[in-house]
Amino acid sequence: MEYIISKREVEKRVSEIGKSMDKTGMDALYLASKANISYLTNFFFIPTERPIAAIVKSNGEKILIVPRLEVEHAEKYSYADRILWYPEYPDEKHPMKWISEYIEEEGLSHGKIGYDVDGYGHVFGYRGKRLSEYLPNTKFRYARDLVEQARVIKSYEEIRLLRESSRWTKYVHQLLQEYSRPGISEDEVEHRASLEATLKMAETLRDKYLAVGWIVGAKAGFRGQIGIHSYYPHSLPRHTILEEGDILVTGAGASVSGYSVELERTMFLGKPSRDTSKYFDLMLKAQKLALDHLSPGTKCSDVDKAVRKFYKEKGLYDYWRHHTGHGIGLDYHEAPFLDVGDDTILVEGMVLTIEPGIYVPGLGGFRHSDTVLITGDGYEFLTDYPRDIDDLTIL
Amino acid sequence: MEYIISKREVEKRVSEIGKSMDKTGMDALYLASKANISYLTNFFFIPTERPIAAIVKSNGEKILIVPRLEVEHAEKYSYADRILWYPEYPDEKHPMKWISEYIEEEGLSHGKIGYDVDGYGHVFGYRGKRLSEYLPNTKFRYARDLVEQARVIKSYEEIRLLRESSRWTKYVHQLLQEYSRPGISEDEVEHRASLEATLKMAETLRDKYLAVGWIVGAKAGFRGQIGIHSYYPHSLPRHTILEEGDILVTGAGASVSGYSVELERTMFLGKPSRDTSKYFDLMLKAQKLALDHLSPGTKCSDVDKAVRKFYKEKGLYDYWRHHTGHGIGLDYHEAPFLDVGDDTILVEGMVLTIEPGIYVPGLGGFRHSDTVLITGDGYEFLTDYPRDIDDLTIL
Repeated sequence: MEYIISKREVEKRVSEIGKSMDKTGMDALYLASKANISYLTNFFFIPTERPIAAIVKSNGEKILIVPRLEVEHAEKYSYADRILWYPEYPDEKHPMKWISEYIEEEGLSHGKIGYDVDGYGHVFGYRGKRLSEYLPNTKFRYARDLVEQARVIKSYEEIRLLRESSRWTKYVHQLLQEYSRPGISEDEVEHRASLEATLKMAETLRDKYLAVGWIVGAKAGFRGQIGIHSYYPHSLPRHTILEEGDILVTGAGASVSGYSVELERTMFLGKPSRDTSKYFDLMLKAQKLALDHLSPGTKCSDVDKAVRKFYKEKGLYDYWRHHTGHGIGLDYHEAPFLDVGDDTILVEGMVLTIEPGIYVPGLGGFRHSDTVLITGDGYEFLTDYPRDIDDLTIL
Repeated sequence: MEYIISKREVEKRVSEIGKSMDKTGMDALYLASKANISYLTNFFFIPTERPIAAIVKSNGEKILIVPRLEVEHAEKYSYADRILWYPEYPDEKHPMKWISEYIEEEGLSHGKIGYDVDGYGHVFGYRGKRLSEYLPNTKFRYARDLVEQARVIKSYEEIRLLRESSRWTKYVHQLLQEYSRPGISEDEVEHRASLEATLKMAETLRDKYLAVGWIVGAKAGFRGQIGIHSYYPHSLPRHTILEEGDILVTGAGASVSGYSVELERTMFLGKPSRDTSKYFDLMLKAQKLALDHLSPGTKCSDVDKAVRKFYKEKGLYDYWRHHTGHGIGLDYHEAPFLDVGDDTILVEGMVLTIEPGIYVPGLGGFRHSDTVLITGDGYEFLTDYPRDIDDLTIL
């Protein structure tokens, strides 16, 4: 299965995490966050009010606990060693009670358990006590970072998936650019480009990948950032008809078995004005500056500090709205953050977005986002798309 | 704005909740769950690692606290009375610290605050202490149900949105049925039907609705429930090519300003066998039985008990996988649940899905889901789609 994380890779992840568990005398991990469960079992699912959890023992055994309706699905597609189940939520016996009894049966109730969520999150009207309330003799310890720190460094297999994602992300963005013209609705451009690329991707890759994750298929769009609305960094679609002179801030991605790069561009419908060209250039410079700071050993905060300094020096701080970038992987945004408040040191194998933006009231927004891999001596683009004003102007 | 919840309606919601707050001597609510925030401010947004919270005072004042990048978006589109902001997450000063200081400035730090989340959830790599740790003199009380109980009974405006959703849900499902034929890929059927219906919806409704919520546009698909894979109640797409003889279990919805009905059907590609017809009929009977139990005054648990009893009597319990249905609104699944463990009493204005399913190993799955409104003397279908085997057989 070419673009699906292998069983061997998952074993390796579990074994690495087992070592960290041993160091702290932890007997097992209890995981109830979707991305952490997927990371250690390769099980992808639709989260609902019915808790799904993974128990990973320090000896490497992986147990999934699922509602009855997910049993066969988990048996067939996950890499878990065993599947345990409870009937339903809320049911007469609460799922958390079932889970606590399973933990007892596994001989863990007098042990030390690291958790990412003490119970289950507020998904779809779920209600329940903490898991620790059911197990008074267990030593519970918050250990979300044990898994999430491991997720920060991407493996060879993960990077392969991201490279394949990049190929489809480029394709869907090319279609978006091709279909963007005055008189067409944003909905039509986005959905046609996404449909065409998603089908092409499915036809080409077939069963060589899983169509799962925070994005389904290949998707490109504007999230409402059209014309002066491009000024809202996170707008929402408003069924706008594209017009000559519009600034378009795009976003694209394509999930390959749960992994996607992020690609965003600032495009122009018609020749940009002197004013918009100026801000476009400044945005490019800010991105270049951030990229130039990327190398192993540098602190994330220092990258963002350099960018903020640039904004201040250029008199742009009124147009600053957000940090330089974020980690990306099984979650769309994940640690580390290229932010003044994150002192994580860049290490080879991290994957990050680089996307400083400039947002000028009444004029529009300017943002490119590229996804890069930190290498031994700097960085490498995972996204591959033209970045200059001429290539992004639609005439 | 025809299909957008009015400011008046939101004021009414806030005023009702204010009354409940007064009763318990609560000074304000702190809300950090997306659907609760949308419910009381009509602000829809993309949740990220940057917390977004609403403070609703007992006098009806609604304050949104957002990251810098959402300020203008919230000012323009929400019904909040005031927008407060912090720069970024994680930043040098943590968002939760900012929020706690705002609460102090509002004179609430020695008061009684009800919360749905004590801080912010685990979204996209967010990390932070509880809000209560920053405010030792505040009396915090878990009050999620105060808002979510109010959300259970749908208003006239909400029901109007659901009816409009039903119209588009029917349309997208008709297209799905029309495009389903042997030799075509599931991706193509789903995405073409969804594209066409989404564009038609956007063209027709334009700015009369918001394209926001847990579903974007009008969508129909199979979530991988094709052929014998229809046996997994919640499968995921596998790029299957449809074949003569396949059972197809569908799902469709269309978000009108955050509200959607749920419509699911069991369809057949080619004449169903005697065996599949048998289970289809039993599924229809189970759904009919559930519907017959719907009336104000009945307990949710009694509906599910009646359905489970039917499964036992008919020797179907091995094929049972999940409860009878769930509430639906700003969240896709929400309280109450038609489940043996939920003793909520049905009341006029509740909206629920009715969807008992039968899942036969090696053969397939059988499930219709309809969304109904509880009325003064029974129920009324909000979904409108053929349910009989002849109408759902594609020849």
